[in-house]
Amino acid sequence: MENGKPVKVILPEIKKPIFIEGYPGVGLVGHIAANFLAKELGMEMIGYVESPFLPPMALILGGKPNPPLRFYGRDNLIVAVADIYVPPTLLNEIAKEIVRYLKEMEASKVISLGGIGIGFFKEKMDVWGVGATEELNQELQEKGVKILQYGSIMGMSGKLLWEASRENLNAYVLLGETFGDRPDPRAAANVVEVLKSLTGIEISTEPLLKEAEMIEEQLRRMHDQMEEARKKAEKQYESIYL
Amino acid sequence: MENGKPVKVILPEIKKPIFIEGYPGVGLVGHIAANFLAKELGMEMIGYVESPFLPPMALILGGKPNPPLRFYGRDNLIVAVADIYVPPTLLNEIAKEIVRYLKEMEASKVISLGGIGIGFFKEKMDVWGVGATEELNQELQEKGVKILQYGSIMGMSGKLLWEASRENLNAYVLLGETFGDRPDPRAAANVVEVLKSLTGIEISTEPLLKEAEMIEEQLRRMHDQMEEARKKAEKQYESIYL
Amino acid sequence: MENGKPVKVILPEIKKPIFIEGYPGVGLVGHIAANFLAKELGMEMIGYVESPFLPPMALILGGKPNPPLRFYGRDNLIVAVADIYVPPTLLNEIAKEIVRYLKEMEASKVISLGGIGIGFFKEKMDVWGVGATEELNQELQEKGVKILQYGSIMGMSGKLLWEASRENLNAYVLLGETFGDRPDPRAAANVVEVLKSLTGIEISTEPLLKEAEMIEEQLRRMHDQMEEARKKAEKQYESIYL
Amino acid sequence: MENGKPVKVILPEIKKPIFIEGYPGVGLVGHIAANFLAKELGMEMIGYVESPFLPPMALILGGKPNPPLRFYGRDNLIVAVADIYVPPTLLNEIAKEIVRYLKEMEASKVISLGGIGIGFFKEKMDVWGVGATEELNQELQEKGVKILQYGSIMGMSGKLLWEASRENLNAYVLLGETFGDRPDPRAAANVVEVLKSLTGIEISTEPLLKEAEMIEEQLRRMHDQMEEARKKAEKQYESIYL
Amino acid sequence: MENGKPVKVILPEIKKPIFIEGYPGVGLVGHIAANFLAKELGMEMIGYVESPFLPPMALILGGKPNPPLRFYGRDNLIVAVADIYVPPTLLNEIAKEIVRYLKEMEASKVISLGGIGIGFFKEKMDVWGVGATEELNQELQEKGVKILQYGSIMGMSGKLLWEASRENLNAYVLLGETFGDRPDPRAAANVVEVLKSLTGIEISTEPLLKEAEMIEEQLRRMHDQMEEARKKAEKQYESIYL
Repeated sequence: MENGKPVKVILPEIKKPIFIEGYPGVGLVGHIAANFLAKELGMEMIGYVESPFLPPMALILGGKPNPPLRFYGRDNLIVAVADIYVPPTLLNEIAKEIVRYLKEMEASKVISLGGIGIGFFKEKMDVWGVGATEELNQELQEKGVKILQYGSIMGMSGKLLWEASRENLNAYVLLGETFGDRPDPRAAANVVEVLKSLTGIEISTEPLLKEAEMIEEQLRRMHDQMEEARKKAEKQYESIYL
Repeated sequence: MENGKPVKVILPEIKKPIFIEGYPGVGLVGHIAANFLAKELGMEMIGYVESPFLPPMALILGGKPNPPLRFYGRDNLIVAVADIYVPPTLLNEIAKEIVRYLKEMEASKVISLGGIGIGFFKEKMDVWGVGATEELNQELQEKGVKILQYGSIMGMSGKLLWEASRENLNAYVLLGETFGDRPDPRAAANVVEVLKSLTGIEISTEPLLKEAEMIEEQLRRMHDQMEEARKKAEKQYESIYL
Repeated sequence: MENGKPVKVILPEIKKPIFIEGYPGVGLVGHIAANFLAKELGMEMIGYVESPFLPPMALILGGKPNPPLRFYGRDNLIVAVADIYVPPTLLNEIAKEIVRYLKEMEASKVISLGGIGIGFFKEKMDVWGVGATEELNQELQEKGVKILQYGSIMGMSGKLLWEASRENLNAYVLLGETFGDRPDPRAAANVVEVLKSLTGIEISTEPLLKEAEMIEEQLRRMHDQMEEARKKAEKQYESIYL
Repeated sequence: MENGKPVKVILPEIKKPIFIEGYPGVGLVGHIAANFLAKELGMEMIGYVESPFLPPMALILGGKPNPPLRFYGRDNLIVAVADIYVPPTLLNEIAKEIVRYLKEMEASKVISLGGIGIGFFKEKMDVWGVGATEELNQELQEKGVKILQYGSIMGMSGKLLWEASRENLNAYVLLGETFGDRPDPRAAANVVEVLKSLTGIEISTEPLLKEAEMIEEQLRRMHDQMEEARKKAEKQYESIYL
Repeated sequence: MENGKPVKVILPEIKKPIFIEGYPGVGLVGHIAANFLAKELGMEMIGYVESPFLPPMALILGGKPNPPLRFYGRDNLIVAVADIYVPPTLLNEIAKEIVRYLKEMEASKVISLGGIGIGFFKEKMDVWGVGATEELNQELQEKGVKILQYGSIMGMSGKLLWEASRENLNAYVLLGETFGDRPDPRAAANVVEVLKSLTGIEISTEPLLKEAEMIEEQLRRMHDQMEEARKKAEKQYESIYL
């Protein structure tokens, strides 16, 4: 790169933006939520990340070429999505460039979306969160978010939270509880509900819940078929040996 | 390198060029098509890519030394070919240098040729494509090209499409359907036919079809021999055990 | 990084500081001791290490985001802790940046805390130490520390000792004897006791000893259960074969 | 390195030199031929390649230290030899620095020597070659060299041929046919014979042919001994079981 | 590093020094000899090598911290020792920095000490050597050193010999014959004896010979015990089966 930086963040000037990040992670919760927002709110691609260390490729979406790391925008809302895994050192550089931009633009909120794998199901899957300051944690708590007191947040969400918080930006991470072994639109819906009350964004999470039901129905059918096959096999086994 | 760049693209000044890329990929479709154009149109080598990260070697073609990544030219037509695999980071740098040149030269068209593996045969193998804009997609559709709506295009073709499109160049990718496990001159011929109607290049794809028939005839004979051998072996087996 | 350095140490101006380092190592002795000091003395996070080569992450402690390598401070006391493993080349750069700061601030003492694995237990686990000069060794000896005459000290403690000593800073390493295969708060307490008499810090190591007793009690119970299980298994074995 | 280059070629000013390269390769043909020339023509070491990426070492030859990559010279003749394997990226940089020098000195000829493995023996082992231009190929053909029409030449010979040819230097590669699994002084002699008629160098290849006969005699004896041992073993086997 | 160099050699100004190098190698001959000189001649540590690519560590010797690569000095004598393995590229850079210093100081002699593994024992283990020039070889021969005519000297000794010799410094390598599988103070003593007559250094090698006898006595006893155990085992075996 001409200026010696391994990464360049290309974004137009947007004053006091609300920045939402949904890079891939556990249950693809952030990825699903961010892409859902971009699509349902009819957002346009307004920027992207440039680096020789990203894979050479174009993503074709709706018949148009796109870079793998991009930003969608509408009014003062920016959504960051990624379609590939990004190596740690590059992630650090991208986070720093993003925060440099957000500081200059005096971002009003920086919100990372993701999942937290719990390995079991329960009636009500919660949303965990943590903010840059005590005040932000109180705000989260008022919205029904459980505050993460101890733990580590890896990847873009963790780095963004730390970098934004040390620039005194209003940074949050929202983590939807998820089983952890499958894409989880329901967890994404839970996270989006919190996001709505945090930002005033108006959007229905119905499509996400429908998608969740479809996935769950498929898994149920697969389970039933496997169960039936198991019983059938058991019977054959009995008829042979008894 | 003196100027700190890992890659240098050496090309003469050619105003408003039509740039065609055919680096190796699935079914070697782009590779076969690009080399066919260079040979049949009697094009001269006019440039090459220079980098310490390419393997030290000379390709001997018609008794003359050539670099592994080179450009052929005639009038305002430029064809880019490669005889080796190029690592991703280097590919990114090469694509950027090529687009820098094409932008400066105000390229009229940037067309990447390649294959798309489908794993089966059908009566009419289609050509898929995608352009930088809605208008280019319509142009492709009028030429009988199926528009790729969703998917990812890896390697030089994908990177070139994206980089050229963000410089507002008329960029296209053409992907000929191919089985995917063998070199496919017939898919190359299909791609060249679209290219002809896109660019006005006049060239007969007969030689490619003849080459395809030869390969197909060879595969057929190999198959017959294997079938015969199988039957013979079966008979011997029967004569022993029955 | 803008200035070409792979590492930046962010710390406020603190004149004639006492600097205490407790990066992770054998028995986590330094890690336990340093975190204990920071917590019990009610120290605030006052700085951190910044580098693109550290993993992208945030540590959530008490509901607040923290970087993995950080400094706690109160009055002229600075405590350095790390929650991750740091690769050697990065460690060298961090040590040099820290010493550059300590020299400029005219640090009064630079004390590294760690463990020394001995592989057995004894009535009184000693604390070994070494200082930058003969005078400092005498000071240590007067505090009941055994002087390490020959050996090598790897990692941050060793590098800090050498770099600080060649800048004529009063540098010490304190190594608490520990079995070596488990976290050892008792060894940490032993090291803190020496630290108290070296620096005049007032703090009770009772909580560390309580924690040690809890861990020891747990290990004892685990051992008893295993012993019982072994005897039971032996009896069953006898009843079958005798 | 001070000037940022990974490689420095140290050579005195020699106007219109004939440059001969014999880096290690198949059958060590180039290596044997180049060292033979240097020794038989009584050439002095006049230069070397310097790089921190070469192994730290000195070659002791005739009781004197030498660098692993060096140049021998006499009058306007320069011979390049290497005693170690050189990694590809370094090879590229060395080739470029050598060609930079040769261009400045207006080299009259640049000749790479090597082998081409054919995996069998025949009455007359040929020498294959290729020059930078049609004229040079005709010159080679007149000397009894078979022209390589298609293929790739890897390593220093290939890179030197290409780099020298694009600077319009009279570059050639000569490849002696060799079995490929052993050092082959006879192939080296064949290559040197062509070299003699290309350059006017006067030298007898008798010593190389003698060396070849010695190696061949040794291999013959080894073969006879193995054959005898095989027969003896067979007899013992028979005497036991029959 | 600030100036972009991966290595810095810190040494005071010493005019016309005799420089002796004993980095670790076969039989640790150079390492033992150099440390013996430093200790017996009561030399002080006067310098060291600094690099972020060396492991972070301090060597504690006599209760004081030391860097792993250091220089001892007295009058115009400098001895270079290393306690760790140094990777090749770093070794190249260190050698060049050392020779730069030695050239500036107009070093009178540059002597590398090491071992040469021969895999057997003989009455009189010789010392082999090679100098930068014919004159130095004659000087060595007069001191009873056998001249190495052909071979390669790897590592710091080889690199230092070549780099110093091309700066016209009086460079030598002395290699004591050693079995090769154990530390060999006797070979070190042999090398030091040559060094004494080359430099006029006055020192008794008695302590090295005593140390050698101790090691030899230990090995003899170990051998006797193993022999006895073997005989005992054989007898038991016989008593059971006969």
